[in-house]
Amino acid sequence: MTREEADALDRDDPLRGLRAAFDLPGGVLYLDGNSLGPPPRAALAAARACAEEEWRRGLIRSWNEAGWIDLPKRAGAKIARLIGARAHDVIVCDSVSVNLFKLAGALLARRPGRTLAVLGDEFPTDQYVLEGLAALTGAPLRRLREGEAFPERSVVVRSLVHYKTAAVADMAATERAAAACGADLIWDLSHATGVLALDLSRDGARFAVGCGYKYLNGGPGAPAFLYARADEAAALRQPIAGWMGAKAPFDFSSVYEPAGGVARFAAGTPPILSLSALDAALDIFDGLDLLSLERKAQALGDLFLAAGEAAGLIPIRVAGRRGGHVAFQHPDGYAIVQALIARGVIGDFRAPDILRFGFSPLYLSYADVRRAGEILQAVAAGGEFRDPAFARRATVT
Amino acid sequence: MTREEADALDRDDPLRGLRAAFDLPGGVLYLDGNSLGPPPRAALAAARACAEEEWRRGLIRSWNEAGWIDLPKRAGAKIARLIGARAHDVIVCDSVSVNLFKLAGALLARRPGRTLAVLGDEFPTDQYVLEGLAALTGAPLRRLREGEAFPERSVVVRSLVHYKTAAVADMAATERAAAACGADLIWDLSHATGVLALDLSRDGARFAVGCGYKYLNGGPGAPAFLYARADEAAALRQPIAGWMGAKAPFDFSSVYEPAGGVARFAAGTPPILSLSALDAALDIFDGLDLLSLERKAQALGDLFLAAGEAAGLIPIRVAGRRGGHVAFQHPDGYAIVQALIARGVIGDFRAPDILRFGFSPLYLSYADVRRAGEILQAVAAGGEFRDPAFARRATVT
Repeated sequence: MTREEADALDRDDPLRGLRAAFDLPGGVLYLDGNSLGPPPRAALAAARACAEEEWRRGLIRSWNEAGWIDLPKRAGAKIARLIGARAHDVIVCDSVSVNLFKLAGALLARRPGRTLAVLGDEFPTDQYVLEGLAALTGAPLRRLREGEAFPERSVVVRSLVHYKTAAVADMAATERAAAACGADLIWDLSHATGVLALDLSRDGARFAVGCGYKYLNGGPGAPAFLYARADEAAALRQPIAGWMGAKAPFDFSSVYEPAGGVARFAAGTPPILSLSALDAALDIFDGLDLLSLERKAQALGDLFLAAGEAAGLIPIRVAGRRGGHVAFQHPDGYAIVQALIARGVIGDFRAPDILRFGFSPLYLSYADVRRAGEILQAVAAGGEFRDPAFARRATVT
Repeated sequence: MTREEADALDRDDPLRGLRAAFDLPGGVLYLDGNSLGPPPRAALAAARACAEEEWRRGLIRSWNEAGWIDLPKRAGAKIARLIGARAHDVIVCDSVSVNLFKLAGALLARRPGRTLAVLGDEFPTDQYVLEGLAALTGAPLRRLREGEAFPERSVVVRSLVHYKTAAVADMAATERAAAACGADLIWDLSHATGVLALDLSRDGARFAVGCGYKYLNGGPGAPAFLYARADEAAALRQPIAGWMGAKAPFDFSSVYEPAGGVARFAAGTPPILSLSALDAALDIFDGLDLLSLERKAQALGDLFLAAGEAAGLIPIRVAGRRGGHVAFQHPDGYAIVQALIARGVIGDFRAPDILRFGFSPLYLSYADVRRAGEILQAVAAGGEFRDPAFARRATVT
């Protein structure tokens, strides 16, 4: 793609105005919003107001006067729109790991004797959480191969978008397969929310969790969300029965009575500074057409896949729909990612040999991605990555 | 106490210099630091730097370059000093509710067939979490009366400081009683840490959780902490086996291998904005003598107890050691607390008839508390609380 072609696509992009809502540092082409979204200006302003006005001036009064007490529901309602759920069926709380535990535990407790199941190449925490729940309760845990039938009446955790390949599962078909054997599916929407056009109601999904800090741009370690369809939530007892999920926490009753609907999945007091940033970040999505987000992410990813292939990387192609990131394999993947970062192109590396690049449609332009592809060419095909400065060392992201 | 006497005590107070470390709003006498501590200036600065520098400029790189990945351990080491634990035996993560679940679940899993036990007037979340764990696992739950013997080999949750009365349990004696019947005690230090001179190592305590947003001043809903003595932690498998508690999360292994020691009690990705504020807030305690904190809190509380009694409130007196707050009973407690807030004296109300006031020794002076006592006199004995504006309505704090 020529520079002129990219510029023309940007001129026609209905989302181009959104970039101004972000506070992006200069000199950086940020292709890692699938790991940690950059700050929306409104999120920075909300974090500051929360700390310096609400906490500092309002003190304890801000639980009521600044509405902290309702933030989990308010932010949940904003996310509900992005996943095709009813506003009251989503709550923001805790982490993806903790929320997976709550949902899987609640479903296990509803009908004892069930099997837990997860794909064997699923994101680690999805597997680990079920391992921990299995060890605590004695429930059997099955690790499935892709395409393998669900065990009868099992509780299954399944990512909609694979964290490495970005392959997207067919939600409606998977729900039908689960229904046929009495299994309950919990969707992990971490790599899907905010970049794919989701419609959980249409597709029959009843349970889901997802991440606040990737495409939702809620800030590092932003709280996660939990969705449980109202008819199901009302019949579930979640295992981490903290006071914030009780019907009347400030009655200080000794006996737990769950709050109505999904609100019972709250547990302890939420981290308000982090939650305020996420809540404000979500306003960017107000009024956006989800399909336009998905289409632009696909187009940007396609552009970069072609650039990577031309630069000698092996693209990981998926059949059908793809999430917001693309992945390549290369034996020197670590060094290539480091050399790109040194040039201001930020992606990430996933052991042992995967290079990942995310394409948020909110702040990336076609010209950005075209330019990132040029730099990838210089770094990979041009050999810049062979500089010893980029050799592997301990890393955590 | 005369104004001159209060001023003299303030002049001799070795902690008087600490007030300058806080950013307190004018016109407020804040007696609710037992519920939500006010912001240390350093915490506000850290929250701002975390959002506007580390997140905005560093983006994903800040996990390494700003040290986000180690924050749970770094903040944990600071709290360890406040509770008499070794630096490596405390981690900051999740909420008190979630951490109670992890510890109680881990202890239950270690030896199946155990009973869970809690006092029947314990803070609700401590009771609720055990209820939820009991429902999930089938373990029996016993609600005990104060002084009742622990069930054999039970897992017991116990607050060190009672959230209403501020009565302090005898930690060493309680541990001896637990050891005699093979029970494991999990201490809830929420109302104790940062205001009492604690020494868990000396007293033989092996497990504890506590709150980051009360006397530690970490901000609204700041993450909580979890202590497990190293010899015990190494033998425990915690049930919420999230990736951040795994030995090598970035190896993306399918099978969970726990991190060493207490680090295995981490679960999901922590809320970094909130955690950064807490981490900075903890520096105020650096080098402080814990006994001087406890003594000043006692003296301030005694002063206010006398003022409240003179104003016609019924003080809740405890035998022996007392936590950092004091409580009164009054049938019009709600209205009195509201009328005090209107006058800038912020305490809190706990249904049905308890007025609570906290006395953080870090930022309150004797003159402050004497003045608050004068206002209490006007509000309670003087009848200001009878104004219909202060009549009960729905409240959440």
